[in-house]
Amino acid sequence: MAKNREVVDKFGKRHTFSEGMEGVVATSSEICFINGAEGRLFYRGIPIEDLAENSTFEETSYFLLYGELPTQKELHDFDTRLKKYRAIPDPVLEILKQMPRKANTMQILRTVVSLMGLYEEKSDEHSVSETSREAEKLIAVFPTIVAAIQRLREGKEPISPDKSLGHAANLIYMVNGEKPDAYAARVLDVCLILHAEHGFNASTFTSRVVISTLTDVHSAITAAIGSLRGPLHGGANEGVMHLLNEIGSLEAVDEVIRLKLKTKAKIMGFGHRVYKVLDPRAKILSQYSERLAEITGKQKYYAMSKKIEEIMENEVGDRGIYPNVDFFSASVYHYLGFNLEIYTPIFAVSRISGWAAHVMEQLRENRLFRPSSVYLGDIDRTYPKISDR
Amino acid sequence: MAKNREVVDKFGKRHTFSEGMEGVVATSSEICFINGAEGRLFYRGIPIEDLAENSTFEETSYFLLYGELPTQKELHDFDTRLKKYRAIPDPVLEILKQMPRKANTMQILRTVVSLMGLYEEKSDEHSVSETSREAEKLIAVFPTIVAAIQRLREGKEPISPDKSLGHAANLIYMVNGEKPDAYAARVLDVCLILHAEHGFNASTFTSRVVISTLTDVHSAITAAIGSLRGPLHGGANEGVMHLLNEIGSLEAVDEVIRLKLKTKAKIMGFGHRVYKVLDPRAKILSQYSERLAEITGKQKYYAMSKKIEEIMENEVGDRGIYPNVDFFSASVYHYLGFNLEIYTPIFAVSRISGWAAHVMEQLRENRLFRPSSVYLGDIDRTYPKISDR
Repeated sequence: MAKNREVVDKFGKRHTFSEGMEGVVATSSEICFINGAEGRLFYRGIPIEDLAENSTFEETSYFLLYGELPTQKELHDFDTRLKKYRAIPDPVLEILKQMPRKANTMQILRTVVSLMGLYEEKSDEHSVSETSREAEKLIAVFPTIVAAIQRLREGKEPISPDKSLGHAANLIYMVNGEKPDAYAARVLDVCLILHAEHGFNASTFTSRVVISTLTDVHSAITAAIGSLRGPLHGGANEGVMHLLNEIGSLEAVDEVIRLKLKTKAKIMGFGHRVYKVLDPRAKILSQYSERLAEITGKQKYYAMSKKIEEIMENEVGDRGIYPNVDFFSASVYHYLGFNLEIYTPIFAVSRISGWAAHVMEQLRENRLFRPSSVYLGDIDRTYPKISDR
Repeated sequence: MAKNREVVDKFGKRHTFSEGMEGVVATSSEICFINGAEGRLFYRGIPIEDLAENSTFEETSYFLLYGELPTQKELHDFDTRLKKYRAIPDPVLEILKQMPRKANTMQILRTVVSLMGLYEEKSDEHSVSETSREAEKLIAVFPTIVAAIQRLREGKEPISPDKSLGHAANLIYMVNGEKPDAYAARVLDVCLILHAEHGFNASTFTSRVVISTLTDVHSAITAAIGSLRGPLHGGANEGVMHLLNEIGSLEAVDEVIRLKLKTKAKIMGFGHRVYKVLDPRAKILSQYSERLAEITGKQKYYAMSKKIEEIMENEVGDRGIYPNVDFFSASVYHYLGFNLEIYTPIFAVSRISGWAAHVMEQLRENRLFRPSSVYLGDIDRTYPKISDR
């Protein structure tokens, strides 16, 4: 529920506003519909469950960007363009190799994406065609950047993209150096579909606020990466993994979680400002986590997650509190063999499609975002000489 | 006046919202008060005219960040810290030298600031002390980065900062290679004071939205730079200079401006969503532009600006339209010998103080910004097989 805040300014005037702009309409959009009360999510009108079952990340990205599902030819052409744009341009890769390897992956990703903007000669155009061209290039190159950062951190050479592989499979290959089996590739593909878009979350809202000044696409996407990095946003999936590692075993779940609840410590991966019931993405991811636990024979992380979910649903408040998309993505990424440092970057690899769709939509009917604020400071102060202070 | 937009969604429900969130309260703040109807601007309660007359950029920055004017000792210590942080760290400068020199200065600045974040080891702390430390470092280093970008573009070596000079004088020195006279240094100092803060404009709002995820300071400032770059925001001062160059002479003003008015072309540097009368900063800058024209003996750019102002005030609409802060800063920067490419970056050199103050304020009482949107797209579409499309 929106937290309304009432304040009185120094003129004695009373103001009410919604904290965090919860429930405040920023603008209209045709991209994403969320029914938080019933736990339903639609991309451009199609239920997320249908896309997760039938679509691919490439197709879903096209759909988000252009509003219609592609024909066979359109999808083939889009796929060909994405494959063409996968490689990091040489001068960018050279600079990336000089960056401090221990730095946070999201900070490096933010910097590399910003850097790539310097090589776009038409970035001032603001035309739909140029915007979509730059957006497609970014969607294509994100996995290569993230994989390269991870390889460099491990002291290994970055691996060049493989055009014979799909978007998701190629990411796993560039990180691990081995081509994944079809099931692992499909699981990541579904993860990328599920994370691609989610309405006016903080990073997407950021990208729209930034592009509303008619700046370049790279400014908007760079800003969104910085926003997604935050622990209250995309960084939460790393927080979940830290929690699972902290607990360490199925047996310890009960004690650790109950202690946290007692001391009112935040438990990462639970609750969502929009969903009042189970996040439909968490439901799908939970099933994949279960299946991956079976296949790998490593039950621990799934079992721990399930146990935490049970406690939170049954014992918090009157109606329980439900896992969000971050919660089960942690164990899924763990089973896929990804290191903690690239959990949030993989979120970015997916969400870039949603950001790009919103940037394009904003540009089509733009008005600069310039909200107001309630001034609660002093009025008409005098400037005292420094010797009188 | 706020443009309310009425829409009907696919459920048949009617919604009204304010386009560009005009008039929508984002949150409360104690930093800036603008009285748009009377053309008055206050930083933390002190009229901008008093600060422009008596303060320095260093003192104003301290005041914005910490809420009180500094004592002599506090100002001395702050100044010492700023001077210490002025130099670009060597590995960052090495990378900067490899970036494409013809790229837009704001895009390079955005990239360098993002890169600097990789060298901050405590950037995840979110503590007030760490945030203010990183903010002070950025305030200190911005002029050095902007000057280095400009020198490199001109094929020259960057100049190291000179600790014997104040913040503004040192910027001119690092750009031109010559120490400025006291008057030129003071004019730039006043320009930096005037641009340091202006409430919830797009870039400041961006920085607050980004930091509200509890991400790092560099993410928030990088995002703000990308936003300021836009021609609807900070990029407008470059647009003014383009206009002046396009007109070319005092004699041509009348014809060009009237033709633009007739064809409803946008005239850069006029009008403001908040000020309904003359922007108080434009008034101050106009006086400096006039004085610089006298001193340099080059009347042209001031005279052209004044003539454009006259036409716009007397002949547009019922009440005229007034110049904003961007309008006279163009001719002032021209007189100070700056190239067009660093007009917006100089805006950033100043506004970093306001951004930093807002980031610190947001962190003190944070709630994630997550507005909503009205969904106008289709509902419950089915997913057709690709062969059926």
